[in-house]
Amino acid sequence: MTTTDEATHGTPTTVLDAVVGLLRATGMTTVFGNPGSTELRMFRDWPDDFRYVLGLQESTAVGMAAGHSLGTGRAAFVSLHSAGGVGNALGAVFNAYRDRVPLVIVAGQQARSLIQLRPFLGVDEPAQFPRPYVKFSRQPERAEDVPAVLAEAHRVAMTHPRGPVFVSVPEDDWDRAAAQPVEPRAVHTDFTASPDALAALAARLDSCARPALVIGPGVDDEAALPEALALAERIRAGVWISPLSGRSGFPESHPLFQGFLPPVAGQLAARLAPYDVVVALGTPVFTYHVVDDSPPLAPGTELFHLDCDPAQATWLPTGTSLVTTLRPALTQLAALVGESDREPPPPRVRPHPVSVADSSHLTPELVLDELYRRLPRDRVLVEEAPSHRDALHARVPVDRSGGFLTTGSGALGWGLPLAVGRALADHRRVVCVLGDGSAMYSVQALWTAAKHRAPVSFIVLDNGGYGAVRALGRRIGIDPAPGTDIGGIEFAALAASFGCAAHYADRPEDLGKALDRAVTHLGDEDGPHLLHLKVAGTEGTLYEPWAR
Amino acid sequence: MTTTDEATHGTPTTVLDAVVGLLRATGMTTVFGNPGSTELRMFRDWPDDFRYVLGLQESTAVGMAAGHSLGTGRAAFVSLHSAGGVGNALGAVFNAYRDRVPLVIVAGQQARSLIQLRPFLGVDEPAQFPRPYVKFSRQPERAEDVPAVLAEAHRVAMTHPRGPVFVSVPEDDWDRAAAQPVEPRAVHTDFTASPDALAALAARLDSCARPALVIGPGVDDEAALPEALALAERIRAGVWISPLSGRSGFPESHPLFQGFLPPVAGQLAARLAPYDVVVALGTPVFTYHVVDDSPPLAPGTELFHLDCDPAQATWLPTGTSLVTTLRPALTQLAALVGESDREPPPPRVRPHPVSVADSSHLTPELVLDELYRRLPRDRVLVEEAPSHRDALHARVPVDRSGGFLTTGSGALGWGLPLAVGRALADHRRVVCVLGDGSAMYSVQALWTAAKHRAPVSFIVLDNGGYGAVRALGRRIGIDPAPGTDIGGIEFAALAASFGCAAHYADRPEDLGKALDRAVTHLGDEDGPHLLHLKVAGTEGTLYEPWAR
Repeated sequence: MTTTDEATHGTPTTVLDAVVGLLRATGMTTVFGNPGSTELRMFRDWPDDFRYVLGLQESTAVGMAAGHSLGTGRAAFVSLHSAGGVGNALGAVFNAYRDRVPLVIVAGQQARSLIQLRPFLGVDEPAQFPRPYVKFSRQPERAEDVPAVLAEAHRVAMTHPRGPVFVSVPEDDWDRAAAQPVEPRAVHTDFTASPDALAALAARLDSCARPALVIGPGVDDEAALPEALALAERIRAGVWISPLSGRSGFPESHPLFQGFLPPVAGQLAARLAPYDVVVALGTPVFTYHVVDDSPPLAPGTELFHLDCDPAQATWLPTGTSLVTTLRPALTQLAALVGESDREPPPPRVRPHPVSVADSSHLTPELVLDELYRRLPRDRVLVEEAPSHRDALHARVPVDRSGGFLTTGSGALGWGLPLAVGRALADHRRVVCVLGDGSAMYSVQALWTAAKHRAPVSFIVLDNGGYGAVRALGRRIGIDPAPGTDIGGIEFAALAASFGCAAHYADRPEDLGKALDRAVTHLGDEDGPHLLHLKVAGTEGTLYEPWAR
Repeated sequence: MTTTDEATHGTPTTVLDAVVGLLRATGMTTVFGNPGSTELRMFRDWPDDFRYVLGLQESTAVGMAAGHSLGTGRAAFVSLHSAGGVGNALGAVFNAYRDRVPLVIVAGQQARSLIQLRPFLGVDEPAQFPRPYVKFSRQPERAEDVPAVLAEAHRVAMTHPRGPVFVSVPEDDWDRAAAQPVEPRAVHTDFTASPDALAALAARLDSCARPALVIGPGVDDEAALPEALALAERIRAGVWISPLSGRSGFPESHPLFQGFLPPVAGQLAARLAPYDVVVALGTPVFTYHVVDDSPPLAPGTELFHLDCDPAQATWLPTGTSLVTTLRPALTQLAALVGESDREPPPPRVRPHPVSVADSSHLTPELVLDELYRRLPRDRVLVEEAPSHRDALHARVPVDRSGGFLTTGSGALGWGLPLAVGRALADHRRVVCVLGDGSAMYSVQALWTAAKHRAPVSFIVLDNGGYGAVRALGRRIGIDPAPGTDIGGIEFAALAASFGCAAHYADRPEDLGKALDRAVTHLGDEDGPHLLHLKVAGTEGTLYEPWAR
C-alpha cells in the first residue's frame, strides 16, 4: 500500500496556503471539527472544494472523522479548539489510538506572542495533553515549519500500525510565510516478514493436523480479507474472530467460520484447544475483560502471530511472532503452503430464529432476527450495544470486508458518530445498533447526521440502563449496582428535536413495519432515521455475553 | 481554613471499607460518576448514606461535581471509567484545574493480574493521561496503599491553589486488605505573606492618591469577600473584576464597583491608567484573549499582586507579588492601612433598561433586563453564553459571594452541569443562562437534573450559532466562518425528551410570562425547567464583548 501524501503546486506564500495544498494532496478536504477563536485564521478564504462537518461536542467530531477514515481508507482531518476542545475529545482519541484509525488532529493554540502571559485559551504543554494515546504529538517551534510538521504527521498516521497524530498550531502561524514548499513524497508502508520465518510457518502449517486462524481487526484495516480467505480455504482452517474485535474481517456465513472468541482466558483457551496450530492475524489474541487464572492456551496448541506492531509482538505472553503487514505475508504464505485435503471443521451452529408470532414482547433476539431478514448483504453495520453484542454476532452474520464496525477499546460514545462519519464517506446507508446507554454519550452527532442528511438507520435497543455493567455486577454478587439505571429518555423525541426523523415501537406486531420504515424503505438519498425500541432487559450475568 | 480529612473508626478490613470511611470523614458521600465494569467492586454494599449522581457522559459528571464543590466548599468525589471514561472527561478536568476546583477523581483500571496482557479496558500509563491538568496523579503501587493515597490526594486537592487530583485504582484492589488505618490529620491550608511585605504594601496604599482593587476568582474561592470589601471601603478604592473571571467576588451594585476588565492589553491598561496603585487579589490580571502589543500597564500605574500560587507569582510580567492566601493577608492589611478620606471614584454608569413595549423582537438585552427584575438577590447565577456575557454583566449585577459562576478557562460545556451540581449542593434554585452552542456540549446533564429534580432554571439564548466565534471572525475579516451555524434545535423538546419541563418563546410580549413560569414561580422544591428563547443575533465584532 502506498501513500503519496504531498503535492503542493508552485511556491506557497502562507502557512495556510501550504496546508490547504497538503490537505488536497492527501485527500483530507473534509474537515471534522468544532471551532473556537484560536482556529479562526485557519478558515480564511475557506476553499469551495472543502467541507466542514461540525460536531456539537468534540468527541463526536473525532468519532465521525474515524468513521470517514474507515470508509475512505485515508486519514481524516480533525480541527479542535485549544485545550478545552482537545480535552472533550480525548475519549474518542483513545479509541482511535487503540483501534488504529489514522486521524490528523490539529488543535488551536493562542498566538505565540501571548503564550508567555498564560492567555485565555492558552495551552500548557500542548503536545503533552493527548498523550499517551497519539502516535505523534508536537507544536512546531516556528510558524514556517507547520506545513512540514503536518506532512510528517500525516505520514506517521498512515504508517502501520496506523493511528491518530496531533499538531498544536498557534493561531498567528496561519498567516505567516511558509518555510519552503513541502516536497511531495511517497512512503511504501507495507512490509513483510523474513523469508525464513514465513517458510518455517508454512512448513508447520503443512505438517499440522488441525489448523485455525484467528482474525483480528488488522485484517479489515489492512484490506487483507481476500488473502486471509484464500489461506483459510487452502489449509482448511477453522476461523475465529478475536475477542472484542472492532471489525469482522471474515465472511461469517462461510462454512469455515467458527465464531467469536470470548475475552476470558479459560474460555478462550478451550475454544482453541481442538487446534494444534493457530495463526493469529492482526490481533493480540489474548484481550481479556475479566480475571481468570487459566493459562492462555491449552497444552498442544501452538501459536503463530502476525502483526505490524513490534510492541504487540513483544508483549504477547506466548507463541511465535512475525512482525509484518498482512497482505504481502499472506500472499507469500499461500504460495508456500500446499493445498490441503484435510477434513474441514464442521460449520458453526447458529441459533434458531425467533418469530413475531411466538413473542409476547420485544426481545433483542427478535429485533436482531427481523433486522437481519431486512439487511442487504453489502450494508455496513455499526454496533455499540454491549448488552446485546453476543446476540448480534449470533444472529446477524456480516459477510463483507469493512462490514462491521465498533470500538475495540471500550470507550463508549464511539458508535453513533462513527456511523455518521462512515455514511458521509460514500453516502451509502449504514445501519447502527445502539444501546440506550451508549447512544447518550455522543447523542449530539444526531444533529450532524440530520444537518448533512447522513444516510444512517439508528436502532436504539432500550433496556433502561447499563445492562452490561449490571450483568457484570451480578457476576460478582453486586446487585443492584448504583448508577446503572437510566430510563425516562424518549429517544424519538430527542432525535426529532435535532431534526432527525424518528419513531418508537414496543410491540412485536409493530416491529416489522417499524424496521421497514427505519431501514428497508430508506435509500442512500434519504436522511437519517432513528428507531427507538423498548426491549426486555435480562437478569443474566456475563460472561456469557460481553460487557463494558 | 482547616481541612480535617480523615477519621476512620476502628480498623478497616478492606480497601473499600477504609475508603468509605475516608469519604464519610471528608464529606464526600455524594459520588458523581459514570460506571463501567472496572469500577463495580467499589460499589459493593453501597452505603445508605451515599448518593450516586449519574452523568450520562463523563464531562457532565465532572462539571456537576465542580458545581457541588463550589456550593459546599468541600472537595467533590468523581468516579470515572478507565481510559475511555477519563478521556471523555478531560475537557471538564482542564476547566477544574484552571478554575481551581478541588475534585478527587478516581478512575477504574483493569485488575493488576491482567495489566501485563493489555486487557480490554486496561490503561497504559494511567497517571499520565490526565496530565498536565491535575495537581496530583498516581496509581498506587500496591492495593493496600489505596486509602492512604486517596487521603493524600484529598489533602492535595484542598490545599491552595486548589484543583483536581487523580487516582487510578485497579479493580481488584477494592477487596484487598488495607495496609493500616488512615490516620486522621489536619492541614491548615491558609498562609499569609511576610509582615515586611504587607507593611510595605500598606504604606504604599496610605501614600497613594487613587488606589484600585482587581478582584479575581480567588476572592470567592477563598471566601474572602468580607475582607476584600472592608479593605476597599477603608481605602476608598475603585474595584474591578479581572478579565474573564469565573466568579464575581464583589457586590456589583456597590458604589465603589467600576466594572469588568477586558481581556485585551491596551484596553485593560487604559481602564487601570487612572489609578496609581493597583492591588490584584487572587487573579493573574493579564488574561488576554486576543493579540494587542500594548504594554500591560500605563506608566504611573504600580501593581501589587496577592495570590496563593507561586507559579502565577513568577509568570506575571510586571508588579510586586506576594504569595499568600487572601483572608489572613487582607485582615492584616486592613489593620495596617489608615482609614482614608480621599474622594472615591464615581460609580459606574449602568445601561438604560430596555422595555418590552419598545421591542419588536427578543434581544438578549431585553431578556436580561426582564430576568434581573425577577431575580432574588441571593440567587446563584451560572453563565455560559459567550456572545452575551458583556450584556449580562452590564444588566444583571451580582451581589452575593459565590453568586456568579462560569468557566474562567474557556472549555465550553461547563455551565450546564455546573448549575446542576451547584443546585444539588444545597437544593436552592439556580438560574443558568446558556447560549445555544454552549448548551449542546453537555446537554446530557439535563437528564440528571430531571432525575434528581435539581432546582435549576435554564434560559437558553438561541442566536442560531457560535455567535462569539462569528464575531471574532468578523474582527479579523473572516465572515462567514465555517462551522459556526447551528440552528434547527428545538431545545424545549430536547429537554422534555429527558423528562425536564421546558417551554419556548420568541415574542417580547410573551417574555414576562415565560420568565415567570421558568424562574419566578418556581421554588426550591420544584424541579428543573428550561426556557428556550429565540433571540436576534448581532452583526457586531468582538472586543467589544468577549468570545470563546
